[in-house]
Amino acid sequence: MPTSLVKESDVDVLVIGAGPAGLMCANGLAKAGIKVRIVDQRYVLFVCVTDPGGFHLAIDACRPGDLLAGRADGLQPRTLEVLQSYGLAERVFKEANQMHMAAFYNPSPNGGIELTDRAPDVTAPTARYPFECTLHQGAIEAIFHDSMRSMGVQVDRPTMPESIQISQDADVLKDPEAYPVRVVLKHLRTADGEIDTEVVHAKFVVGADGAHSWVRKSLGIQMEGEQTDYVWGVVDLVPDTDFPDIRNRCAIHSNNGSCMIIPREGDKVRLYIQLGRTDAVDSTNGKVDTSKTSPHKLMEVAKTSLQPFYIRNTGDIDWWTIYIVGQRVASKFSVNNRVFIAGDACHTHSPKAGQGMNASMNDTHNLVWKLTYVIRGWADLSLLDTYEFERRKYAQDLINFDKKFSALFSGKPRTQEYQDGVSHEEFKKAFQTFGGFTSGIGIRYAESLITNCKYQGYASNLNIGRRMPPQILLRAADSRPVELQDLLPSDTRFKFLLFTGDISSPLQQGKLSELSQRLGRPGGLLDPTLVGSRRSMLEVLTIGVGSKWTVRYTDIPPLFRSHWSKVLIDDSDPHERSGGKAYTSFGINPSGAIVIVRPDGYVGMVAPFTAVDDIEQYFDSFAAKP
Amino acid sequence: MPTSLVKESDVDVLVIGAGPAGLMCANGLAKAGIKVRIVDQRYVLFVCVTDPGGFHLAIDACRPGDLLAGRADGLQPRTLEVLQSYGLAERVFKEANQMHMAAFYNPSPNGGIELTDRAPDVTAPTARYPFECTLHQGAIEAIFHDSMRSMGVQVDRPTMPESIQISQDADVLKDPEAYPVRVVLKHLRTADGEIDTEVVHAKFVVGADGAHSWVRKSLGIQMEGEQTDYVWGVVDLVPDTDFPDIRNRCAIHSNNGSCMIIPREGDKVRLYIQLGRTDAVDSTNGKVDTSKTSPHKLMEVAKTSLQPFYIRNTGDIDWWTIYIVGQRVASKFSVNNRVFIAGDACHTHSPKAGQGMNASMNDTHNLVWKLTYVIRGWADLSLLDTYEFERRKYAQDLINFDKKFSALFSGKPRTQEYQDGVSHEEFKKAFQTFGGFTSGIGIRYAESLITNCKYQGYASNLNIGRRMPPQILLRAADSRPVELQDLLPSDTRFKFLLFTGDISSPLQQGKLSELSQRLGRPGGLLDPTLVGSRRSMLEVLTIGVGSKWTVRYTDIPPLFRSHWSKVLIDDSDPHERSGGKAYTSFGINPSGAIVIVRPDGYVGMVAPFTAVDDIEQYFDSFAAKP
Repeated sequence: MPTSLVKESDVDVLVIGAGPAGLMCANGLAKAGIKVRIVDQRYVLFVCVTDPGGFHLAIDACRPGDLLAGRADGLQPRTLEVLQSYGLAERVFKEANQMHMAAFYNPSPNGGIELTDRAPDVTAPTARYPFECTLHQGAIEAIFHDSMRSMGVQVDRPTMPESIQISQDADVLKDPEAYPVRVVLKHLRTADGEIDTEVVHAKFVVGADGAHSWVRKSLGIQMEGEQTDYVWGVVDLVPDTDFPDIRNRCAIHSNNGSCMIIPREGDKVRLYIQLGRTDAVDSTNGKVDTSKTSPHKLMEVAKTSLQPFYIRNTGDIDWWTIYIVGQRVASKFSVNNRVFIAGDACHTHSPKAGQGMNASMNDTHNLVWKLTYVIRGWADLSLLDTYEFERRKYAQDLINFDKKFSALFSGKPRTQEYQDGVSHEEFKKAFQTFGGFTSGIGIRYAESLITNCKYQGYASNLNIGRRMPPQILLRAADSRPVELQDLLPSDTRFKFLLFTGDISSPLQQGKLSELSQRLGRPGGLLDPTLVGSRRSMLEVLTIGVGSKWTVRYTDIPPLFRSHWSKVLIDDSDPHERSGGKAYTSFGINPSGAIVIVRPDGYVGMVAPFTAVDDIEQYFDSFAAKP
Repeated sequence: MPTSLVKESDVDVLVIGAGPAGLMCANGLAKAGIKVRIVDQRYVLFVCVTDPGGFHLAIDACRPGDLLAGRADGLQPRTLEVLQSYGLAERVFKEANQMHMAAFYNPSPNGGIELTDRAPDVTAPTARYPFECTLHQGAIEAIFHDSMRSMGVQVDRPTMPESIQISQDADVLKDPEAYPVRVVLKHLRTADGEIDTEVVHAKFVVGADGAHSWVRKSLGIQMEGEQTDYVWGVVDLVPDTDFPDIRNRCAIHSNNGSCMIIPREGDKVRLYIQLGRTDAVDSTNGKVDTSKTSPHKLMEVAKTSLQPFYIRNTGDIDWWTIYIVGQRVASKFSVNNRVFIAGDACHTHSPKAGQGMNASMNDTHNLVWKLTYVIRGWADLSLLDTYEFERRKYAQDLINFDKKFSALFSGKPRTQEYQDGVSHEEFKKAFQTFGGFTSGIGIRYAESLITNCKYQGYASNLNIGRRMPPQILLRAADSRPVELQDLLPSDTRFKFLLFTGDISSPLQQGKLSELSQRLGRPGGLLDPTLVGSRRSMLEVLTIGVGSKWTVRYTDIPPLFRSHWSKVLIDDSDPHERSGGKAYTSFGINPSGAIVIVRPDGYVGMVAPFTAVDDIEQYFDSFAAKP
């Protein structure tokens, strides 16, 4: 009988589950210098995709239902921007496939299918990366593992949580220094089969433990919503085919059922294949029964649906699964602002629009800086209310979108014989209308203590609550074009963007000088003698209107240029290849404006120079007094 | 007394000298799988730039005169393209400073200097990277060291060559398998001061051992040209200044002498300061005498020249030197096509236009693939004649340019009082006129067996003999925009660019089909059954005219698409952000054209579809028979 050792430990944040949501959380916290641990019950990271027997292992290693979550669909444009903000996108671009084009196939009058239309895969005009990346989840997780390892954090696995208790003492719950959550963990030492027991005392716990979340169930949080009738099979393969759109994302409506093609890294392709309920569901309990089908059977369906084109797999099937689409959202995302759930633990839906991993990572991206601020003593616990407020609303929107889109995708195509079917025009319109949403670019957080819409007019084309869009600016000192988003890294700081208006205008210079005095006054937001949180949470970037041929960065008041590289102008680069469109794109008032960008890259506030009080109040509403 | 051991070894190529020229050579050969060794006599790589006493060490570690070569000036646009072709540019971009703007200062009527004008630092419209990078030479060398290490090659140091002998036997010299060069090396084991002697038998030797080249002297090769009267001092520092152009390249003509500012990585800046001969030259022998000056004295000159702006060094002077400009070219670059000299061993000139390191690296970039072809048995020894033919002509052009430019730079400025001085207009015009040359972009190799200008008209805007310019193309299969230059890596292969014309035109399809039959015939250039050199030295890329909304990459004959990613179209990307300009930019004939790009990225030949014989003859002229 295995011996059992009990040790006790404490940690600022315990993350349960090391999928994309958990890794984004732990990596972000580690980067912010927060004491974080992350545990996962899975034995294996992911099966090697070139291992011919791999899919069996994957099925064995995961509990039923984890499979869908187990292999992610792709990285949306906004997720790529977020990864870039953590310095992680570069490697994604090296390893991933890019989808730039979507192709739509429908029944041909001659039988089989034919190309009806193509359209850009992403409909989001301001996307910095106007495409999706596809890469197997193991590779994406490896990027996080390497980043975390460089900061001394590794996933503890296999580790099972056994119990979770939150203190009922109101004073303890209110004390940001307290450790009110007690979690018992069982570490399996695989080599000898022994189990170590550990009691962890945490300030905060994040349950990112998937669709069957143990954390969610332990806290008694309900999933609201229902299962659909749609059953789909998924196959990953390296095809031999004469299908000309095999490297584009394809939505195929055939009379044999619908099919989606997602090209992946290398020459790999993922097929989503619509199945009849009887082909894959156990009628006695309504659950998926994998024994009723096989990758071979899935391929047979795909072959028929793709006619007159041929498709064969050239080797072994990398991975396959079947699933029933469920559309549910958790009733709440947090208990006492001490335990949070994120990712698939909060929302399940169809993978057809490739939202799963993206929604998950963006959940914890939203949470990381807020936890950091509270743990550092920079903000009140109430800041954490905005996590559920912002992300649950998004999850509900996601389910609503998914209902519409799944119905259109799984519906029969409209043909001469079947006039009630889904027409191409209808489908394409939905595909493009939802583009802002599916790309993640259009997501807008509603007004709250961190999203202040009072002065929207001063940057009329910048939507407060949306992410700060990309824009090429020129560094005033050296005329080097730089991407604004690269100046907004996820470093937990608010960015104070000072749009000065025309630097050479004496009127604007006067206003700037006045603003410098006001913000720099003793106790002011940018008081240079101030030490502590308020100064550390802000970075000032100055963006002027000026000509690269004459501008002098030294003309900007010193308070607004901590370094020569922090002064930018809205002008084209010396070769006129890019730049010069920021003021117009953002709709900046010629008299200047201040834009506050939240640490997660979302616009938190816009204000005129005269609204220093409002800006200071914005920070006072959630941040600790200096 | 140290013991002496003698060992014997053989190697395909022995590179003597591990500066930029030697490293580019050894790295390129290693990448090509050639057995290469590289030795250097320097003890230290480079002094740490943050080491306050570093400049003393640098002076001690190098022989007099090496100083100039010891610290390179910058990477020109063409060099950046070349580094990119070896996969080495990415790290340069991470570590280097970029210079986008040049500023010109002249005497102000009020005393001191004033800004006269600014202009793009690079004048070369087709440059992929329209700027220069500055980075200390140690960091650049480290990039090569890391790349070489990943291939199992390291610099042997400190190692002194002692003697070099080339076989006088004509048969041996003609035998590509022979090792006709015998070099005796002395390896100093620094730990115990012992010396190991080694006799190396090499097929080829490359002397990249600097301005005072031992290889060159051993072979009795003369330097032709003369020393000038221009004496300059150089200081690296992190300045405290109110000079608004401190992060731009500045050409300053003051009444106190000329000065050039080169911003470098981090906040570092290099100043080039014109000196009087008496300040720095030993009148008895005409040589530089460093004891006559000091970094403090150099800074005093700079402070006066920059008035009314102030400049102070904030810490220690990183590095400094003084030098007299010499302008010389070696009488020949090779002996028997068995020993070559490259880099500063072949040409010395002023550093003012930042050509030194660039000319050096491009020398060996030119040589690497030619040596590789001969060593692999793919080409006759006579291919090596083109090295001196192409690079000596370039070196002469460089000296001629340098004479003109140095005179303008070192000349007194034209003022009210001194009407014979150099006017700003004159200087700026020269700066821009020479832009194609100084950027490296405009360099054109003259007609030779590897540069065939017969059919120039079929790609009227592509200069045969110039490097293949960048251009965004779309991959037909997935509409992904790709940079043509990224498809032309320095992998020792010729690139066969098949510009098909309109893919959808039956006329062009017929021509393509005919061309496929002709090139694919038994014994034809692209005969798919062929095994060996001729097939291995060619990669086919197909570039069609077509629309991304309708194109089918499967319409291209299989001979011209070895993989789906090798078919490209000249169309804009799905978001109309780039692409669609290749045919126009290159002036491709609507009936199609074949462009042969050499392994070093230079256009070697253009031909119509009907000129298959000429294309095959082009390869027959230097390549081994299949």
